[in-house]
Amino acid sequence: MRTVDFQDDAVRLIDQTRLPHELGFVECRTVGDVADAIRRMVVRGAPAIGVAAAFGLALGASEYEGEDSAQLLAHLDRAAAELRATRPTAVNLAWAVDRSMRTAQEIVEGASGRNGGTIERVRAELLALAQRMADEDVAVNRRMGVLGAQLVPQQARILTHCNTGALACVDYGTAPFLQGARLTTWELRQEGIPHTLITDSMAGHFISRGQVDLAMVGADRVAANGDVANKIGTYTLAVVCKENRVPFYVVAPTSSIDLSLSSGADIPIEERPPEEVTHLAGQPIAPPGVNAAHPAFDVTPARYVTAIVTERGILRPPYEASLRTAAKGPAEELLVRA
Amino acid sequence: MRTVDFQDDAVRLIDQTRLPHELGFVECRTVGDVADAIRRMVVRGAPAIGVAAAFGLALGASEYEGEDSAQLLAHLDRAAAELRATRPTAVNLAWAVDRSMRTAQEIVEGASGRNGGTIERVRAELLALAQRMADEDVAVNRRMGVLGAQLVPQQARILTHCNTGALACVDYGTAPFLQGARLTTWELRQEGIPHTLITDSMAGHFISRGQVDLAMVGADRVAANGDVANKIGTYTLAVVCKENRVPFYVVAPTSSIDLSLSSGADIPIEERPPEEVTHLAGQPIAPPGVNAAHPAFDVTPARYVTAIVTERGILRPPYEASLRTAAKGPAEELLVRA
Repeated sequence: MRTVDFQDDAVRLIDQTRLPHELGFVECRTVGDVADAIRRMVVRGAPAIGVAAAFGLALGASEYEGEDSAQLLAHLDRAAAELRATRPTAVNLAWAVDRSMRTAQEIVEGASGRNGGTIERVRAELLALAQRMADEDVAVNRRMGVLGAQLVPQQARILTHCNTGALACVDYGTAPFLQGARLTTWELRQEGIPHTLITDSMAGHFISRGQVDLAMVGADRVAANGDVANKIGTYTLAVVCKENRVPFYVVAPTSSIDLSLSSGADIPIEERPPEEVTHLAGQPIAPPGVNAAHPAFDVTPARYVTAIVTERGILRPPYEASLRTAAKGPAEELLVRA
Repeated sequence: MRTVDFQDDAVRLIDQTRLPHELGFVECRTVGDVADAIRRMVVRGAPAIGVAAAFGLALGASEYEGEDSAQLLAHLDRAAAELRATRPTAVNLAWAVDRSMRTAQEIVEGASGRNGGTIERVRAELLALAQRMADEDVAVNRRMGVLGAQLVPQQARILTHCNTGALACVDYGTAPFLQGARLTTWELRQEGIPHTLITDSMAGHFISRGQVDLAMVGADRVAANGDVANKIGTYTLAVVCKENRVPFYVVAPTSSIDLSLSSGADIPIEERPPEEVTHLAGQPIAPPGVNAAHPAFDVTPARYVTAIVTERGILRPPYEASLRTAAKGPAEELLVRA
């Protein structure tokens, strides 16, 4: 079962806001539906929202009812902007949208006049590309699992934060959205992997007592120097790991690498509604009207990162060099190698 | 309005489990009622549970209906054991219970046969002592506020964790029991102090961006070497403060100092029910039956602590010496000096 799928002319998403209590689905039939689902975190996780956005653009191509391919591109451009704006931190979203837009542009530019067929081709190719990205994502994750496993000794106790969907043996719950508690424990149970749920504030306690062998987290964006944006709390975890000499690994596909940013200081940090801090499942957990902040991500400087596991290899410092090499490989290569 | 008070032959407690949604009270008429209220965290915070337990022993003296003062002491011994067992980490609880028991023993030992009057005197003295401890606590906190204020520059942004009930300007919310979100914000609003609620996982983010000038936390027990047991998450916060050169202050009355323990490794860490991690206000936030851990406290090694604010002065490293000096003063001295 895939988190993001395409069935009966609709993008079908597992509704991650309802897990673990129920396994339900949301069907998106328009670009607006997809953008809304990403914003509301029905679908979340950097790679998943990238693939969802690619399917969204395929829906966008079907939405266009005219016969002018320049108008189609303009329509897709607006759709791409709407999708890109939903969540600013994960670069995979922009990466997937840009890749789809390049495909659409190349088809239109290479078409020279045969407009009817061109629009049909854009629709078919955008859908095929989104499906390829979904397959690639499966292959990339499998490959990162194989590579990352080399870093994990037998019987290791792994700490993870938020939800990364792979490789975790000990789980780490995250407030405020509680994705560790809700999603990661659900996944680990599906896989039969022993796990213990703790709160963010307990991580240091267990690390300092030698009960954690290594930490593995995901990434929403990796800057050219190896600074990593990931779910809020990741920086704190990395600092405590370093203080206790526990390896801290980032697991991220090369689609999360953004060589255009020289450091993490340039990564935009999404501010989510304070209500996600002051309320839980609609119930207030603080006095009414309390002032609250909700940065959804933080930046972990590269010096805290022991290694970055990508589908193209395990990268080590200096990250300027290793990231540049890893990011260079062609995207399509993955399916072959995985 | 006091958190712990004695009215109409009952210990009256603000029900801290219902804040901030309602300001309600729980009346305890027996030792068992008081023990239950401490266990259920109707009353919490190291100094408050100490005073509540002292009032509990006064109730215990009234419960005894016989006329034999040795039997009374045996009855009080059982009550003291029940109260001490409710929460193992905060030393103030044992400190207050021991102080009351010493008073009862001294009265009985000095009485030589006048049993009827002796029992009356124990009842009256235990109640008077508990009331004196409550007054002392107010005086001690006021004094710590005056001394601690010397550490706070004008316009400083202070980070605090959980609930310390004093001195905080920026608030730090804590999962799982959400005492920062529920209690500290409520207090700060009563005092008109500007504050922002964040989750535990956000602290490192704001500290690393220079948005925190200093951190101040409470303590449930301070070992002879300066290691500090406090609400889970305190250690992590201290590590991040050190990494970013932000002063990390502990504010604790001398009744929290336990010179009998050479280091924090000897402090018992209370394990609370995992349901407090997997549920919130009775609602599950994780899959049913998930394995969860719930250490309620952690130990921060003394090397992370910039200073310890007590009612007898601001203590600096080496803590072996400064704690021994501070702990030596007589308890009664406080009311005079405050």
